[in-house]
Amino acid sequence: MKFKRSSCPITNSLDILGDKWTLVLVRDLALGKKRYQEFMDSSERIASNILADRLKQLERSRIVTRQAYQQNPTRYEYVLTEKGEGLKPVLRALVVWGQQHFPSNKVIPTI
Amino acid sequence: MKFKRSSCPITNSLDILGDKWTLVLVRDLALGKKRYQEFMDSSERIASNILADRLKQLERSRIVTRQAYQQNPTRYEYVLTEKGEGLKPVLRALVVWGQQHFPSNKVIPTI
Repeated sequence: MKFKRSSCPITNSLDILGDKWTLVLVRDLALGKKRYQEFMDSSERIASNILADRLKQLERSRIVTRQAYQQNPTRYEYVLTEKGEGLKPVLRALVVWGQQHFPSNKVIPTI
Repeated sequence: MKFKRSSCPITNSLDILGDKWTLVLVRDLALGKKRYQEFMDSSERIASNILADRLKQLERSRIVTRQAYQQNPTRYEYVLTEKGEGLKPVLRALVVWGQQHFPSNKVIPTI
């Protein structure tokens, strides 16, 4: 296996996950969102071009798979693979740290 | 508290941590590295300007504190605060996921 920056598992994970949007999308998928418009509707208001790019990257990294649910025009639903489901502990750790340091009244559904 | 993108704790965490380098640095700090040159020596070969920028951001976010260990020129050592130590579960979750999906023979010291 060829590594991009090093053989460290943290570094290799960040080569895929290390940006402001990828794990926000994985959160939405973990919460059961599946469709483009559902991701667009999240309160972070992701830009359409960023969303399209990140979904492509997530698919390429085999974190999501997509399936057509409509033809003409073809529209896709996205779901987490097992590899993607494996990111839930990362999300949970971020929730714990985030809740401790950015207090709000928002109720977070269990991931 | 004013939120940048939303009140989601994952999103707020990513506003600070969501890039390719910040958690690599937090890893180094968690492993006991303290000095600029030690961070530079890590196998990822961080660029000096990125390192300086990320250390500044980590300090601003109160994830690290710095302390002068030498004068003329002044040089600093960096250590994780309690808030920074609180990121260890995030690192551990990334190690687990990374080891599963980017197999290598590298032995990871316990964080």
